[in-house]
Amino acid sequence: MQKINIKTACLAFATFAISSTAILLIPFQMEAYAEKQISSKTEICLSCHRKATPGIVKDWQKSQHSKLTVEKALEKKELSKQVSIDKSYKGTTTAVIGCAECHMLNTGQHKDSFKHNGFTINIVVSPHDCAQCHSIENSEYQKNIMSKAYHNLNSNPVFESLMDSVNAHQSFDGRKVSYEDKIDPVIEEDSCNHCHGTIVKVVGMEDRMTSMGKMSFPVLEGWPNQGVGRINPNGSEGSCTSCHPRHSFAIEIARKPATCSQCHKGPDVPAYKVYSVSKHGNIYNSMKKKWDFGAVPWTVGRDFTSPTCAVCHMSLITDNDGKAINQRSHQMNDRLPWRIFGVIYAHAHPKSPDTTIIKNKAGLPLPTELTGEPVNEYLIDKKEQAERWDNMSKICSACHGQSWIDGYHERFLKVLEATNDMTLTSTQIMIKAWEEGAVKGLEQEDSIFNEAMEKMWVQNWLFYANSTRFASAMSGADYGVFANGRWYQSLNIQKLSDYLDFKLEIK
Amino acid sequence: MQKINIKTACLAFATFAISSTAILLIPFQMEAYAEKQISSKTEICLSCHRKATPGIVKDWQKSQHSKLTVEKALEKKELSKQVSIDKSYKGTTTAVIGCAECHMLNTGQHKDSFKHNGFTINIVVSPHDCAQCHSIENSEYQKNIMSKAYHNLNSNPVFESLMDSVNAHQSFDGRKVSYEDKIDPVIEEDSCNHCHGTIVKVVGMEDRMTSMGKMSFPVLEGWPNQGVGRINPNGSEGSCTSCHPRHSFAIEIARKPATCSQCHKGPDVPAYKVYSVSKHGNIYNSMKKKWDFGAVPWTVGRDFTSPTCAVCHMSLITDNDGKAINQRSHQMNDRLPWRIFGVIYAHAHPKSPDTTIIKNKAGLPLPTELTGEPVNEYLIDKKEQAERWDNMSKICSACHGQSWIDGYHERFLKVLEATNDMTLTSTQIMIKAWEEGAVKGLEQEDSIFNEAMEKMWVQNWLFYANSTRFASAMSGADYGVFANGRWYQSLNIQKLSDYLDFKLEIK
Amino acid sequence: MQKINIKTACLAFATFAISSTAILLIPFQMEAYAEKQISSKTEICLSCHRKATPGIVKDWQKSQHSKLTVEKALEKKELSKQVSIDKSYKGTTTAVIGCAECHMLNTGQHKDSFKHNGFTINIVVSPHDCAQCHSIENSEYQKNIMSKAYHNLNSNPVFESLMDSVNAHQSFDGRKVSYEDKIDPVIEEDSCNHCHGTIVKVVGMEDRMTSMGKMSFPVLEGWPNQGVGRINPNGSEGSCTSCHPRHSFAIEIARKPATCSQCHKGPDVPAYKVYSVSKHGNIYNSMKKKWDFGAVPWTVGRDFTSPTCAVCHMSLITDNDGKAINQRSHQMNDRLPWRIFGVIYAHAHPKSPDTTIIKNKAGLPLPTELTGEPVNEYLIDKKEQAERWDNMSKICSACHGQSWIDGYHERFLKVLEATNDMTLTSTQIMIKAWEEGAVKGLEQEDSIFNEAMEKMWVQNWLFYANSTRFASAMSGADYGVFANGRWYQSLNIQKLSDYLDFKLEIK
Repeated sequence: MQKINIKTACLAFATFAISSTAILLIPFQMEAYAEKQISSKTEICLSCHRKATPGIVKDWQKSQHSKLTVEKALEKKELSKQVSIDKSYKGTTTAVIGCAECHMLNTGQHKDSFKHNGFTINIVVSPHDCAQCHSIENSEYQKNIMSKAYHNLNSNPVFESLMDSVNAHQSFDGRKVSYEDKIDPVIEEDSCNHCHGTIVKVVGMEDRMTSMGKMSFPVLEGWPNQGVGRINPNGSEGSCTSCHPRHSFAIEIARKPATCSQCHKGPDVPAYKVYSVSKHGNIYNSMKKKWDFGAVPWTVGRDFTSPTCAVCHMSLITDNDGKAINQRSHQMNDRLPWRIFGVIYAHAHPKSPDTTIIKNKAGLPLPTELTGEPVNEYLIDKKEQAERWDNMSKICSACHGQSWIDGYHERFLKVLEATNDMTLTSTQIMIKAWEEGAVKGLEQEDSIFNEAMEKMWVQNWLFYANSTRFASAMSGADYGVFANGRWYQSLNIQKLSDYLDFKLEIK
Repeated sequence: MQKINIKTACLAFATFAISSTAILLIPFQMEAYAEKQISSKTEICLSCHRKATPGIVKDWQKSQHSKLTVEKALEKKELSKQVSIDKSYKGTTTAVIGCAECHMLNTGQHKDSFKHNGFTINIVVSPHDCAQCHSIENSEYQKNIMSKAYHNLNSNPVFESLMDSVNAHQSFDGRKVSYEDKIDPVIEEDSCNHCHGTIVKVVGMEDRMTSMGKMSFPVLEGWPNQGVGRINPNGSEGSCTSCHPRHSFAIEIARKPATCSQCHKGPDVPAYKVYSVSKHGNIYNSMKKKWDFGAVPWTVGRDFTSPTCAVCHMSLITDNDGKAINQRSHQMNDRLPWRIFGVIYAHAHPKSPDTTIIKNKAGLPLPTELTGEPVNEYLIDKKEQAERWDNMSKICSACHGQSWIDGYHERFLKVLEATNDMTLTSTQIMIKAWEEGAVKGLEQEDSIFNEAMEKMWVQNWLFYANSTRFASAMSGADYGVFANGRWYQSLNIQKLSDYLDFKLEIK
Repeated sequence: MQKINIKTACLAFATFAISSTAILLIPFQMEAYAEKQISSKTEICLSCHRKATPGIVKDWQKSQHSKLTVEKALEKKELSKQVSIDKSYKGTTTAVIGCAECHMLNTGQHKDSFKHNGFTINIVVSPHDCAQCHSIENSEYQKNIMSKAYHNLNSNPVFESLMDSVNAHQSFDGRKVSYEDKIDPVIEEDSCNHCHGTIVKVVGMEDRMTSMGKMSFPVLEGWPNQGVGRINPNGSEGSCTSCHPRHSFAIEIARKPATCSQCHKGPDVPAYKVYSVSKHGNIYNSMKKKWDFGAVPWTVGRDFTSPTCAVCHMSLITDNDGKAINQRSHQMNDRLPWRIFGVIYAHAHPKSPDTTIIKNKAGLPLPTELTGEPVNEYLIDKKEQAERWDNMSKICSACHGQSWIDGYHERFLKVLEATNDMTLTSTQIMIKAWEEGAVKGLEQEDSIFNEAMEKMWVQNWLFYANSTRFASAMSGADYGVFANGRWYQSLNIQKLSDYLDFKLEIK
């Protein structure tokens, strides 16, 4: 443990005097080292990594982790904390959180631990490690369906067959096209599991030449990955870096919609796009320059005048009197009564984050029947839905009157119904197609997602119904009309109907 | 009417001294209250709403309305005014414009008036109310086709049938798909009328529990809505908040493309997307951080170096000598010779903002025949077109030489012709399809927009031709080629031709 | 040559005192004129153009060109230069670079030279002119495939036929659709050649009334254009303004992704979109406000914490010790082993920027056979590929460990293989379609890009395979799955197979 000596500080000051471009440099160094207590282990890491990976070291120097000891963090008032700190924290409280404090933690539990310059370190820092200090966030996150994103996709035979029909190689034998059975896991890591998470596994060690000479490192499979449901080498699920990226862990990043947009922008879940054409997004995009994304607590009207994703779904928000309007949550869905995307029909949120446990009457692991009826025993009840909606609408109330909120809510509920109805119509066309043998389905022990008609049907719910629901939920109407919304839903049903006629004709 | 007392000012200063995070807070308070004159009615509103809707109160405190009295506004030089102020204004001129000044205005004319804590207030502030001070903008806006956006869509039987074919529920009887006749107006409010505007109607009163005890409020239909052609409870058309959102009414917002993008981003009208891939958008996105979006007057080269939507279409722009290059206008189309979107063929702008009065030779309320010939008597003539182009090109001249402008203009005119020609080809295929009975059309008293082939044809003009024209108009070529432009227009015609063959085969 | 006199400086100061909005104005004037040496020729240009084109003059005043003489620029340390300066530069070194210094350069070689107020000036400043000072950038750029963008598209019969099938008018004779042979070059300038570049040609002179009276100007064809492969009136290829726009030539613009997005955003080359959903783009979009895009040298971690397009592909990047991590290059592909877009199959980069010289075994000017085998003699070898990858991965190493980089690289190589394999499958379906006469191909001396099925096939590689590759290359997975990636590639093959059945049925 050592403080910066006076010589370095003077040197910094001297640099300041000679070069104006150095102005930017110095504040970072000053912030990072002057008066800060860096553990001796971390100092050793930094002594090489300053040169070896300069970008990431600088990134860390800009972080709160590089500036704040646990001791000081614990002294902060509750509402002024960026994140919870566990009072039962057992580690050193007088050093800032540097390389060693995270990468040398719980090494016994990590299959990716290895000897590195005399220390045992882990490559992959996992939610379980972050929980050392931030246990509340970790336990909330484990109740978040996102923490099971790998599992819910890859261990559910229905969704797995959807995934296969996207990623598998197809070949043409001169007469018909068929899918290959085996898919290279690397392709799935580059595809669906990029967001859902991979299994990160150590498969050996290898020697590499470095600027420090030959060194030995673990070889990882499923790496790199920052998916929200990543299975880590210590067995834990999730990846905090997904939203708190790299080594700045900047709260500004987590609060900005660009973060959510990494996984929530595509036609299957166009949240970011909808936001960007909403009035909220309009105000955000026009005024964000003047907002304070680092303020803690985060005060509505003062620090921002329109919500970002985080405001509605996660953040601790206060009013002008410093009273909390809503509490911080990493469960994500505790303000959400409905699950509106990724599934055939919108429905009440599942009770358990693990959705593979669900079985419908047809024996499929789906939260609704193929014809839309919800499998209620696995889903939250109306009371819980009402509480979640109440939770969400507190945020609306900070700027909107009750008529506004009620009008919005009534519309949204009708849109859920209407989009589910349209999905049912498209499903009925498919049921006939399967019955008539125009395409092969469950009866023929074939995937219901792999032929052209089936994929068109998938688009009806996975793209167009979802998009219409998001457009309503977040008031970005374009995505409910011409931009992948009702226009396409309507066209798609007409096309499906014609397509069935064509298929029956050539049968 | 009261001025802020010295005690509050001192308190503010004291806060400044103790907390650095309060720095942001104080300037707002200082700006809002110190030396400002808030009417006693507004003071009473604020006394509760500071707590009840803190976000919106803070938003207002950041506005010019909270800082400037009509008296002071009238003293400003003409070019330094953000917006016109009516000299014949009859209200109090010595108070800033607060809650009461707008929400207690013209209450006799408002069906949404109600008693609230001893005052009669309106929920929905309408263009007619804003016109109390800003009468020029209101009268210009009433000549703007956007003020009739509800009417022109919902009261034109052709466009209404297009709207129905998007929003109506479809059902499958095991043999064919059919549309339901009745559409829930709430679905239309969530869809097309989100941008076009709803009819906001009072349908009763209801009691609600508030933090102030039980209170009675009007129940509104068609609410919330910020559509540009909204029919307000006082009968006026439009919604200023569509572009001047919430209670900051910030000119920065109206000047930024994100505002226009709310309604002008989808495949039917991709203005924002085209802008974002144009050189103008490139410079805006790269340099906006350094521009001054609040400057009045707005000086080309100094305050911005590349136009936003507002610069070309609406704003008062000055040169370095403070001379106006172009005047502010809320008519929107007075710099536009051509109407390039939303219709089957591009054509000269209609004379009247009310387009339901148009009748073509076939008796349809369309500005062209189905085969493209313009219905000239309802459209502006070549002289008016030339004047509008002259008006627009003044802005171009601020940065571009005449060769540049001429070359651009020549291309655009050719693109109008070429896209209209391609639309004609697609229409000719449809005419055959209707004649041969491959799909049902006007002869069979059926919508011409509701079957798969018809919808493909709609995409030809509503998406691809429009997109190609926007790409040319705003020099964002991608949207004229692969991103919903010529590529799709060309593919679509080939597919329509094949589709007709398929349909005739199975007939 | 004249320095600003004290009177002007005082005037500026006086303005400062009376008007607070003038604060912005003055620094620009001060920067532009005080202590600066503007050539007398440029002074004369400015004396009119200050009024005639105020936007562009102000833009220039904000540029380095208006502030720095060649003499001073040559004194800068190598790593502190924004761009190279040729030491053998023969022109005046004591004036800043103004209108005259560029527009009166090499007039003898310019077909667009003309007499203007007693001077001979050129309209179009070309790379060859910029090379007067920046010869290194020009010679690098000439090795860049982008400098041949006009040529490689318009002079390659295969790609020309693709272009024609996009731009040509189609007409319907009541039975079938056919393409017109002749395409108006203006349409191509508005379409593909907007980005690829036009041929800018002088076709005459015309008199115009200006504020200075009647004056004569050249009439240009193919103008305006800023395409990267523009053929200039002096015969040179390229357009520096494509990325260094207008007259500020701001390095901030070239370093920001919005610049690249002008041409690299569409479905055929979704680089910008992929970036925006990548972790890199997430961090950029969230933190860019705090980064320094004007710093030279550009230091990783200090000036930015996540790469933009320029960082990986072009820029000179330094570490904290001022050591270059990578050198600036305007060749663009010298960090790129693979060419992943615009072609049927991904392959090793061509050796020559002129790709029209390539001939495959079938005699077509394509870098692969129609069935994917690379035409190796025209392509860089594995050694060169390895060097380029090494070059690129230096940038990755600034923030990422070797396991990360290796895992990323392995995935990318597998994705190249998988997407090529899927393209082959779609091509095999087409080969059968051509053989069976379902559509007309090379055998019938018809374009292979003009019928519906053929266009669907084009989308398989030009949109979906490209998008999947970009998504992998830049870790923006959405564009490799549902947003124009594997989902559509897979659907497309299923549809192609059905489509072939439909076509054969009605044959």
